[in-house]
Amino acid sequence: MTITGEMLIGATALRGNDRPIHAVEAATGQKLEPGFGGGSAADVERACALAWAAFDTYRETSLETRAAFLEACAEAILAIGDELVERACAESGLPRGRIEGERGRTVGQLRLFAATLREGSFLEARIDPALPQRQPLPRADLRLRQIPLGPVAVFGASNFPLAFSVAGGDTAAALAAGCPVIVKAHSAHPGTSELVGRALQSAVATCGLPEGVFSLLFGSGAVVGQGLVADPRIKAVGFTGSRAGGTALMKTAAERAEPIPVYAEMSSINPVFLLPAALEEKAEALGKAFVGSLTMGAGQFCTNPGLVLAVEGPALDRFIAAASEAVAAAAPQVMLTPGILQAYERGTAQLAGSSRVTKLAEGQAAKACTGSAALFSASAADFLADPHLQEEVFGSSSLILHCRDLAEMQALAEKLEGQLTATLHLVEADTEAARALLPTLERRAGRILANGWPTGVEVCHAMVHGGPYPATSDGRSTSVGTLAISRFLRPVCYQDLPAALLPEALRDGNPLGLWRRLDGALGRH
Amino acid sequence: MTITGEMLIGATALRGNDRPIHAVEAATGQKLEPGFGGGSAADVERACALAWAAFDTYRETSLETRAAFLEACAEAILAIGDELVERACAESGLPRGRIEGERGRTVGQLRLFAATLREGSFLEARIDPALPQRQPLPRADLRLRQIPLGPVAVFGASNFPLAFSVAGGDTAAALAAGCPVIVKAHSAHPGTSELVGRALQSAVATCGLPEGVFSLLFGSGAVVGQGLVADPRIKAVGFTGSRAGGTALMKTAAERAEPIPVYAEMSSINPVFLLPAALEEKAEALGKAFVGSLTMGAGQFCTNPGLVLAVEGPALDRFIAAASEAVAAAAPQVMLTPGILQAYERGTAQLAGSSRVTKLAEGQAAKACTGSAALFSASAADFLADPHLQEEVFGSSSLILHCRDLAEMQALAEKLEGQLTATLHLVEADTEAARALLPTLERRAGRILANGWPTGVEVCHAMVHGGPYPATSDGRSTSVGTLAISRFLRPVCYQDLPAALLPEALRDGNPLGLWRRLDGALGRH
Repeated sequence: MTITGEMLIGATALRGNDRPIHAVEAATGQKLEPGFGGGSAADVERACALAWAAFDTYRETSLETRAAFLEACAEAILAIGDELVERACAESGLPRGRIEGERGRTVGQLRLFAATLREGSFLEARIDPALPQRQPLPRADLRLRQIPLGPVAVFGASNFPLAFSVAGGDTAAALAAGCPVIVKAHSAHPGTSELVGRALQSAVATCGLPEGVFSLLFGSGAVVGQGLVADPRIKAVGFTGSRAGGTALMKTAAERAEPIPVYAEMSSINPVFLLPAALEEKAEALGKAFVGSLTMGAGQFCTNPGLVLAVEGPALDRFIAAASEAVAAAAPQVMLTPGILQAYERGTAQLAGSSRVTKLAEGQAAKACTGSAALFSASAADFLADPHLQEEVFGSSSLILHCRDLAEMQALAEKLEGQLTATLHLVEADTEAARALLPTLERRAGRILANGWPTGVEVCHAMVHGGPYPATSDGRSTSVGTLAISRFLRPVCYQDLPAALLPEALRDGNPLGLWRRLDGALGRH
Repeated sequence: MTITGEMLIGATALRGNDRPIHAVEAATGQKLEPGFGGGSAADVERACALAWAAFDTYRETSLETRAAFLEACAEAILAIGDELVERACAESGLPRGRIEGERGRTVGQLRLFAATLREGSFLEARIDPALPQRQPLPRADLRLRQIPLGPVAVFGASNFPLAFSVAGGDTAAALAAGCPVIVKAHSAHPGTSELVGRALQSAVATCGLPEGVFSLLFGSGAVVGQGLVADPRIKAVGFTGSRAGGTALMKTAAERAEPIPVYAEMSSINPVFLLPAALEEKAEALGKAFVGSLTMGAGQFCTNPGLVLAVEGPALDRFIAAASEAVAAAAPQVMLTPGILQAYERGTAQLAGSSRVTKLAEGQAAKACTGSAALFSASAADFLADPHLQEEVFGSSSLILHCRDLAEMQALAEKLEGQLTATLHLVEADTEAARALLPTLERRAGRILANGWPTGVEVCHAMVHGGPYPATSDGRSTSVGTLAISRFLRPVCYQDLPAALLPEALRDGNPLGLWRRLDGALGRH
């Protein structure tokens, strides 16, 4: 494949007329060719028109057709071969092993949704048969299924050029649900985006689907991004990025004549609670492992552990010593983009300059394009006194909070904003302390971990990658795992519809062999 | 029981200090005693503090405890006896048979949610066991359940003083989910609200639950209504009412530091499509039955058939003749409130005054406090030319649209706003015409009916009472039926949590006997 700098609108490829975007080699800051011409309002219009035209056909394709399509997407991505890995490494600065792993995750995610389609219970089929003899009034025949919302706009994320971008989690979930997808590529990795986009475009053609099922646009947030969210044919939005970016999309979506759901994953500092007995027993090992999680991928994970809470005392001092030593030894790492590096340096400088914060350690000196890990501490009281200390610093920066006692730790947990994750380190003697914290953590986070680290998000059935605002714009949902398909669905009820018109999922005799709820009882009936 | 005019805040009853609200006897316009003192910001604060204090305890009560509580609510409502029926009839002007039926529905709804709790699959328990040997990385133990969002503010509806008010659908679903509820009573039926509120308050006490599980406030929309929606401890809102009221609450909810979901059911004209062969075969019977649905309960249903579409011709003329005759014979009916009557008269006067609209018939002359049914017609082209004609007129008013052909009918359907329902009348010869319309109707409505009328919403498993904006603020949800519990839930994932800390629903050995998803497979395991 050759990267051309073209957008993919349905079955066509065309060069945008707006000022071209160039990718930058993350490790060197050098401009990569070609330029990617930015899209215009007319390009948004064309992509939306095609997506809308495709919707009714695509959403009624069989479960097997959509499953085979997702598998074809996976195959086509793999078929790009090493060119994809090399380009993604160049654009993101992430090491080859990580990109290869991320490709595996992306492909695995598409295949997992294929299996979810074949299993079919996401349709939530329900049948309450007619009761013509019921007194005082008969009951009609009522049947329910979930249908897709409509075309979805997906915004590629900077930090996962494959798994949260063109063919990432939201795209896979939306396509599985039966929604056409229009991706706005992240300007940090347009070449990677084009390669993956062409793979999806070819899978649409191979599978004989309407061309509007998938489009890929480049361009500005104002024209292409906001243009997509404002278009009346777009019915939901998936976004991973900054809080400012996410809230701007939420505002546009809420102000439409028909407001639509926005699933924006925005900001999380992922508190880690070191409970006393665990800290006493494993302070050094925890300190070292913590820095492993903190510095993984240059800290550029939504689930990076940006806050550590523990009760002050000698055990915490040991943890800090071990963590500081590990941070000091940490090599600088290439960051995704110059903008992200600048924001990281600004964030750590602000922490370092705060009178409430002590700088504990920093990693080896940064060279061009790299960031150094940074570790800070503050008292719980000082943390609460300055709301800025709760802001995410995207990168390998973390803040350790000294709490006077468990009560202060618990009170602080109660004041935290919504989070993607909350982590407990505990041994058996900490059980009661953990039990006291759990209700607060459940109210504050989408995932609660014990004796692990929040980086690393398994793609499976029981995953929740989501959480209360501002971790996400809609805490009722997850962006990772098979439950993510639900975010792009809505229920429709059919009352007394003649058999010839009923969707296959709801027909008598259960032709699809689905799990269905018959008068409320689950079964394959 | 005696109606005192007091609010119920947790276990206490107290009189609000704001200007008292008086109920009005709907049939006479006469003021009913006592006055209901309006709540203040301090009352909102107290109710929210109690609800918040109750939340962690209430949400972890057993499924059986919550089921028994909902049943106790039902029993306590029935135990009020005839006083409740009489007061509700007086305040609403609805006939005794309707109010008795509505009481049965309210009680049945609470009991259905009790059964839903005992069945337990709304928890959506998922377990992906650890895979310690997996290469290249082991998998952690991951478990998911749904937990309640938090305290919910419920706004009583004018048109269902029992089934959509203090102990109505949203309250039942929220309490079932594990959310404390604060109801703002509708000022049209404060006495009914107090009676039902006292029943719920007594059930809370009888069941030994924290007092903050339920509170009932009277007062103004500005102080009590907006105050509740703005309070940071309120995590979701249920509302049934006008589009202006619903959008005002949406705005407040979106502007909070932490935006929250609003489930507002606002406005729907419930289009009815008379397909040609059915119309030819049954024009007169359809005309008569249509008016039966139109005038039921003085047309004061969210699902009232406010729009009828058919292809012009002799069959439609016969339908119109029969419907006009039935409307002309319709007795005037007491309307819920003077305000609703005025809005109805304003709406029908506007239709009558429109140059695009022909008045076909009106019901028998109205007396004080009553409204007369009204029937209008227009061409499809004129309807599309004036967006005001698509606005809901709450009451027994409907507009019949002449379409030139099926293509125009379909084009018009595509232009309709989101609806709660869409109805098809068809016989076998209409199957292809119906098939062509269905995709549009699925995109536009929450429930699609064949050969029936949209009034009458069954409380069951397969019901959807919801639909795209502006029918509701959130088309991903239903306010009626057991699926409504989902609107008050969000998923949480537990990773490697020690067995002692796991919620019972997720423990090994399935102690609750739930349907769970194990590595993706549903079963009672």
